[in-house]
Amino acid sequence: MTKFPLHLSSLIAFLKKWPGVGSKTAERYAFHLLGWDEDELEKLADLLQNIKKKISSCSECHALMEEGRCRYCDLSLRDSHVLCVIASPKDLFALEETRIFKGLYHVLGTLLSPLQSRNPQALKTDQLKLRVERLGVQEIIIALDSTLEGDATALYLKKELETLPGLKVSRLAFGLPLNSTLDFIDGGTLVKALTGRQSL
Amino acid sequence: MTKFPLHLSSLIAFLKKWPGVGSKTAERYAFHLLGWDEDELEKLADLLQNIKKKISSCSECHALMEEGRCRYCDLSLRDSHVLCVIASPKDLFALEETRIFKGLYHVLGTLLSPLQSRNPQALKTDQLKLRVERLGVQEIIIALDSTLEGDATALYLKKELETLPGLKVSRLAFGLPLNSTLDFIDGGTLVKALTGRQSL
Repeated sequence: MTKFPLHLSSLIAFLKKWPGVGSKTAERYAFHLLGWDEDELEKLADLLQNIKKKISSCSECHALMEEGRCRYCDLSLRDSHVLCVIASPKDLFALEETRIFKGLYHVLGTLLSPLQSRNPQALKTDQLKLRVERLGVQEIIIALDSTLEGDATALYLKKELETLPGLKVSRLAFGLPLNSTLDFIDGGTLVKALTGRQSL
Repeated sequence: MTKFPLHLSSLIAFLKKWPGVGSKTAERYAFHLLGWDEDELEKLADLLQNIKKKISSCSECHALMEEGRCRYCDLSLRDSHVLCVIASPKDLFALEETRIFKGLYHVLGTLLSPLQSRNPQALKTDQLKLRVERLGVQEIIIALDSTLEGDATALYLKKELETLPGLKVSRLAFGLPLNSTLDFIDGGTLVKALTGRQSL
């Protein structure tokens, strides 16, 4: 039984496919959209229709790019001695926000996950190794999530990249997040912060 | 500064207009949509473009309707002796789900709110009174939110409808929600449940 008008039910079904959106939230969004002006709806529809045309993936670093050239692969702007390995195109923007990293990026697109049978082949480390050699990269910064999948992938990458001579491999530091209070920090983080303590 | 590609930023700006959606959620949705197939995006865009064409508002009860006729105003299916006053078209579906109400509806579209300068004129009670007289309604059930605005509107409606002879005006009962434990119920609800206690 569709309790809502059919068109609205179809819209709700589509919105429910979004991450973290359940029935109630999808209904809320759909009813909200009912109140929008026709031309606003038109503009939103237009944006959705053109995502794939306007935004593509760089064949070199796999970051998002517009208009045929990747600004993160431009060697006149970026330092090719350091390369940062990230899991998804979105992570790039978080790192760019810091404004302290000027090197190159390499988007893996996935993380190792034996449970979901994502195997090392999916990481395409051959491509990464070829880039490192071709560009003369001296340091690789592994900037992956501090999760089980992130840890597994980082360890695997380290083993793979060790075969390249003279390459330094580092990973983002673990420890206390800024503005945190010790009594609210989980034990695992505290252990990492203790063992990785930095001299003052 | 737009940190994301322009097209993605525009999409995020649109998604941020949705209720309860902040920057982080809008970004999450936008990146999720990047991974959709072209034809799925096309279908979603199509649904958005056609909302206004497919779904309109009944000129009689102001509920949502499809295809030119309102199924909630059909007197062969509904009991015209009882009329339920609700705030928004969405509330209708919550009441229909209960399957115990077979009367007519009247959607106010808004609630009184002195703070947001929504005055009694916005409620268009004249329209409501005309309907009550024309249809020979015997009971009005006020089914508004149990909020400050809902209470104010219910009181105002009661005063307005009192002028109509022989009309019974009731409101949804206040009290404990089902499956609640007393120690988690707020004081206000408990007071309502006590004063409105029902004989067993």
